[in-house]
Amino acid sequence: MSATSQADPVSAKAHAFSSVFGQLGPQMAELDRFLREQLAAFEPEIRAMADYCIDTSGKRIRPALVFLSGWRGPGVVLPDLVRVAAVVELVHLATLVHDDIMDGAEVRRSRRTATREFGSTAAVLLGDALFAHALNLATQFPTNEVCSAVSASTRRVVSGEIMQTLRRGSADVSRADYQRIIDLKTAELFHVSCLLGARLAGSAPGYVDAASRFGRHLGIAYQIYDDLADFFGEEKRVGKTLGTDLASGKLTLPLFLLLDRLPAPARDELVAEITGQRPVQTGLHFQQMRELGIFDGVASAVMAEVKLATDALQPWPNEPPTPLLRSLGDVLQAQVAALRPVS
Amino acid sequence: MSATSQADPVSAKAHAFSSVFGQLGPQMAELDRFLREQLAAFEPEIRAMADYCIDTSGKRIRPALVFLSGWRGPGVVLPDLVRVAAVVELVHLATLVHDDIMDGAEVRRSRRTATREFGSTAAVLLGDALFAHALNLATQFPTNEVCSAVSASTRRVVSGEIMQTLRRGSADVSRADYQRIIDLKTAELFHVSCLLGARLAGSAPGYVDAASRFGRHLGIAYQIYDDLADFFGEEKRVGKTLGTDLASGKLTLPLFLLLDRLPAPARDELVAEITGQRPVQTGLHFQQMRELGIFDGVASAVMAEVKLATDALQPWPNEPPTPLLRSLGDVLQAQVAALRPVS
Repeated sequence: MSATSQADPVSAKAHAFSSVFGQLGPQMAELDRFLREQLAAFEPEIRAMADYCIDTSGKRIRPALVFLSGWRGPGVVLPDLVRVAAVVELVHLATLVHDDIMDGAEVRRSRRTATREFGSTAAVLLGDALFAHALNLATQFPTNEVCSAVSASTRRVVSGEIMQTLRRGSADVSRADYQRIIDLKTAELFHVSCLLGARLAGSAPGYVDAASRFGRHLGIAYQIYDDLADFFGEEKRVGKTLGTDLASGKLTLPLFLLLDRLPAPARDELVAEITGQRPVQTGLHFQQMRELGIFDGVASAVMAEVKLATDALQPWPNEPPTPLLRSLGDVLQAQVAALRPVS
Repeated sequence: MSATSQADPVSAKAHAFSSVFGQLGPQMAELDRFLREQLAAFEPEIRAMADYCIDTSGKRIRPALVFLSGWRGPGVVLPDLVRVAAVVELVHLATLVHDDIMDGAEVRRSRRTATREFGSTAAVLLGDALFAHALNLATQFPTNEVCSAVSASTRRVVSGEIMQTLRRGSADVSRADYQRIIDLKTAELFHVSCLLGARLAGSAPGYVDAASRFGRHLGIAYQIYDDLADFFGEEKRVGKTLGTDLASGKLTLPLFLLLDRLPAPARDELVAEITGQRPVQTGLHFQQMRELGIFDGVASAVMAEVKLATDALQPWPNEPPTPLLRSLGDVLQAQVAALRPVS
């Protein structure tokens, strides 16, 4: 696969929220400036490599959640929010650098991955350096609170990824395992982004709690949407090859529902594909999913999480971030609806 | 190579200091207890994997430096020192987990490496989880100081490893590069261990500074000793295969001195071996090193750093840690002397 023929999954994932994020121009510009400034903290010999990873072309969902949860009006850029947005983005970038090594990914955001550019050994260490600097930046607040929250979240994110890794190619995975994995690998950093955004903007403790619960449920909803798009997206629009979860033996919600609804012989065949005992018949399963109404089952799961997310904000209609956060839920629902297959 | 035939480089490295470390029984016992207790902080699903990494058989040089720099008498176990010793050990363990992936190492401390046991993908993430937890533990002090120092050190340690990785198989490496790499990859964590040990035991700022300078120079001395042992050790005693640095294209001080002293044609051959253009003739170079007196050149470099280390303590003869720290320098000198080839 050439360096340019592989599409970019990240901007596609982020696309869902871009209409809301459009309001964050001044905040994102300041974040860019701040991230560039961080390069000076890296040892001169690896600065160019860190620069390569801290590119500005990603959609930056987690920083956006920080800014939205601490929203105080258009153009109000709180320095603490910029700093913590940089922290969560650097943690996320570090996990991407390590993910790309493990997936053997060659291209991300239309450029060679760090592992392709510098080799996997250097990329493991470069991810470590990004982690270390993120947490160092998190110590630049008056108290330990930010660094404590972010380091604990980081441990949980990678724990979720470990669980997912160990279950690849196994059909002995429960729905509870899946819920737990996405709660850790995706929802955790959404949650801490919202928590710290609200906290550092000076919100009341009750609202900090509400925003952090919003973040957790939005993260779960977002991951389920992403898993749905792997089967029901259009390749051009989603910007990546479909069916990659099945091809890599990863059990996600659409596959759980399909396994539930298939008659026994077909289910056994699918299990054999997941466990690598038979070649994967992607086209067949796309068709089965359409015939068995899997879309609606998965879409309801997204909606249920979006509802839990917005319910958390219910008692706080007048807080400045509330309408913006709610609209993220609306956008995600619209994106799910746009994936619905034409019947 | 079978899982049991490969010797364990780490305990061999630590061996040099074990006579001084013998006085740290109560501190090390408390560290063991504390590290075991940390397992509860890991997500239940990865706890057994973390447990596998946090084994108790290593010699724990960095925790020992914490305890010695904060020494207040036999049996005096300061809880803050135990906590920070756990932090530096967890950071070190995380780097070992990642190093073993990159080196394809199968055995460490007489057990399968994490990468062999759980696969390289899980091991990358497991190292990340150890890093994250180390830094989370570092936030459990009243101020940001510990976490700030440790996260910055971690970034510098991995930066040194990146530089070393990128220079493997290249002869275009200067002595200054080598000094810089060992200062970062080894001396940095020695330095921060001594700094925090002295600081958390309540030493005067001048002594904290002295102990941290001691740690840095001892770390450099120790790494040069380790590089010397790769050429002049006895395999049985050092506990690992000799000549691995040359075999992996890594330029260390013994090789720099050999390159300086070899006549041009022989030097060109050695360069061709380092850069992978010719098969490595380990036995020949062992012999050349003996003939050209390389041992003495490298040994003087170790002694010079040991002197800088102990000089830093000169103005502080009556501080409780001083005699113990000095004796570490003596032990290292004795270990170097023990490597001297019989002429």
